[in-house]
Amino acid sequence: MRTSLCDRLGIDLPIVGFTPSEHVAAAISRAGGLGVLGCVRFNDAAELDAVLSWMDENTGGKPYGVDIVMPAKIPAEGTSVDLAKLIPQEHRDFVERTLRDLAVPPLPDDTDERAGVLGWLHSVARSHVEVALKHPIRLIANALGSPPVDVIEQCHAKGVPVAALAGKAEHAVRHVDNGVDIVVAQGYEAGGHTGEIASMVLLPEVVDAVGDRVPVLAAGGIGSGRQVAAALALGASGVWMGSFWLATEEYLQTMGESEAMQRALVAAGSSDTVRTRIYTGKPARLLKTRWTEAWASPDAPEPLPMPLQNLLVSHAHNRIHHAADPTVVSMPVGQIVGRMDRVRPVADVIAELVSGYEETLSRLDKTR
Amino acid sequence: MRTSLCDRLGIDLPIVGFTPSEHVAAAISRAGGLGVLGCVRFNDAAELDAVLSWMDENTGGKPYGVDIVMPAKIPAEGTSVDLAKLIPQEHRDFVERTLRDLAVPPLPDDTDERAGVLGWLHSVARSHVEVALKHPIRLIANALGSPPVDVIEQCHAKGVPVAALAGKAEHAVRHVDNGVDIVVAQGYEAGGHTGEIASMVLLPEVVDAVGDRVPVLAAGGIGSGRQVAAALALGASGVWMGSFWLATEEYLQTMGESEAMQRALVAAGSSDTVRTRIYTGKPARLLKTRWTEAWASPDAPEPLPMPLQNLLVSHAHNRIHHAADPTVVSMPVGQIVGRMDRVRPVADVIAELVSGYEETLSRLDKTR
Repeated sequence: MRTSLCDRLGIDLPIVGFTPSEHVAAAISRAGGLGVLGCVRFNDAAELDAVLSWMDENTGGKPYGVDIVMPAKIPAEGTSVDLAKLIPQEHRDFVERTLRDLAVPPLPDDTDERAGVLGWLHSVARSHVEVALKHPIRLIANALGSPPVDVIEQCHAKGVPVAALAGKAEHAVRHVDNGVDIVVAQGYEAGGHTGEIASMVLLPEVVDAVGDRVPVLAAGGIGSGRQVAAALALGASGVWMGSFWLATEEYLQTMGESEAMQRALVAAGSSDTVRTRIYTGKPARLLKTRWTEAWASPDAPEPLPMPLQNLLVSHAHNRIHHAADPTVVSMPVGQIVGRMDRVRPVADVIAELVSGYEETLSRLDKTR
Repeated sequence: MRTSLCDRLGIDLPIVGFTPSEHVAAAISRAGGLGVLGCVRFNDAAELDAVLSWMDENTGGKPYGVDIVMPAKIPAEGTSVDLAKLIPQEHRDFVERTLRDLAVPPLPDDTDERAGVLGWLHSVARSHVEVALKHPIRLIANALGSPPVDVIEQCHAKGVPVAALAGKAEHAVRHVDNGVDIVVAQGYEAGGHTGEIASMVLLPEVVDAVGDRVPVLAAGGIGSGRQVAAALALGASGVWMGSFWLATEEYLQTMGESEAMQRALVAAGSSDTVRTRIYTGKPARLLKTRWTEAWASPDAPEPLPMPLQNLLVSHAHNRIHHAADPTVVSMPVGQIVGRMDRVRPVADVIAELVSGYEETLSRLDKTR
């Protein structure tokens, strides 16, 4: 399992793993892939700096990358307090009522609550880029498409390639025109923010549109060697996996209180996700739980636009996480959740991807 | 490009092509695949009988199959008049108003109008099976899942295998338990009635669930050799293609008045489809046009349940077809419509699938 992407990024396997957990990211890099650490959880750039220093010590000298969330156009910004004024009372009431109906307790007084939304802001994302570029990162990916051209140039000045997600071929073309070096083609089946075109159709379209200029990674629906082989058959130079790492042992090393979330994911089938605007205001695929069902009821308000929706539900997410009830989880995950049937070490996942890939190629040989 | 399916069905290539056109079906069979003729357009069993006799003369001795639409459970039936009484006036008014808004003219008085809905009825589908079994067919497929067990037994008594579509692994298991011989795993990206799980995830799930008992075909998103290779990598024994044949020269030989529809399909991109209940009452993917957009407007009524919705819009479909306006087409088609960029002979499509498949396998060889 070796493509041109491996030489480009200095990795052994064309497997890029996006994760908010530094323990998972480091394990992916040590196993021969490229661990990409999601930065959106870091509201404080100094905290990101400390975690990247930890990465520098714990990847065994293997390359790693970071993932930011930065729109190419700068949206209206403000402090958390300014934005909060734009949230209608009807929405606040619905969230409170729903948490009560779902028996989600308030947070204990001494909880160190995450503020939410800040990591999605342009100013914060720029500070993430600046901090990350002081570390020996090998990739900066932007989960919202192209970063602004000046940020791309800033990365290139440090010799760091830039990846951007795309759900349509025309978006991929725009990214590459902006200077993006690697396109991640993300299909409908993916977790988190995702478009409507499924990977089987999207991936060859993106490859035909930009594949002679940049490598294309397949995101969405990947969790086995067969699926890696399918992605490469469709023209991808590698795969971008996000959901699958949520059910790894290393994930708990970073997010110690996530047992209920992992139990929910392991129990879920591929039909147990929903694409909805309730997480951030943009369509994103989440695990289907009593929380998402409440938002699908006839009396639920329309989700607010980005970034207000995330601000609205941020405190609720903290309460839900603390409640540790697998039936009331709020978690982005793709349809591949149906294959996440146990919690395993990262290295086991990657070993199975490699062996499954080789078995698939042997099987295809017999069709000639 | 050869799998166990080829021996099973007596074909050269593991390509099964579903089409309402006998000219297309015969051309697929002559080119080495299995042409499967959709029967739902035949309200009169004698008409189907005549067309199958034509098939017997025009497939060059190659095998072919038929596709029926028959639920495993028998729904409420009635004559077209009985059912018509169940359609609310509000719905009729909306259809009339929309046709007027879209400048769709009435049918000329001498038009031989198709009655609609009848082909979806259980009694009619059973008569299709009986007629088909008098011909040397090699497959009966059911687009609505398992046929009733007695129909499966009727086919088996004649040595004809039965295929059934499935959008979830649990449906596939039920089909095989009922005696179905081939499962068609149909992903979200497919045209017509389709579920929510995309092929990249659905196909390996169905293969894991029933692949040791029956062959699994991949439906949805297939229109190139790369995609056939991806489907086989995911574990399919072959592919089931429907949409792609709509843009063939042979299609016009059967459906002479479909130039506007073909123009619309050739112009459409992969984002230009919508999954909606407006065609039959069950979620089906259609080309996005001013007709589907009208049904998505806030003042549109909720689509009726099956089979009432098809009865409601059947006359409108006739008027729309007669109007020959590419912006007001009502046509089931999958996301692969984005790759349908010209009208070609069936044999050209199949030759390109084969050469693309071989190129893909050569490319994958280099990743070892």
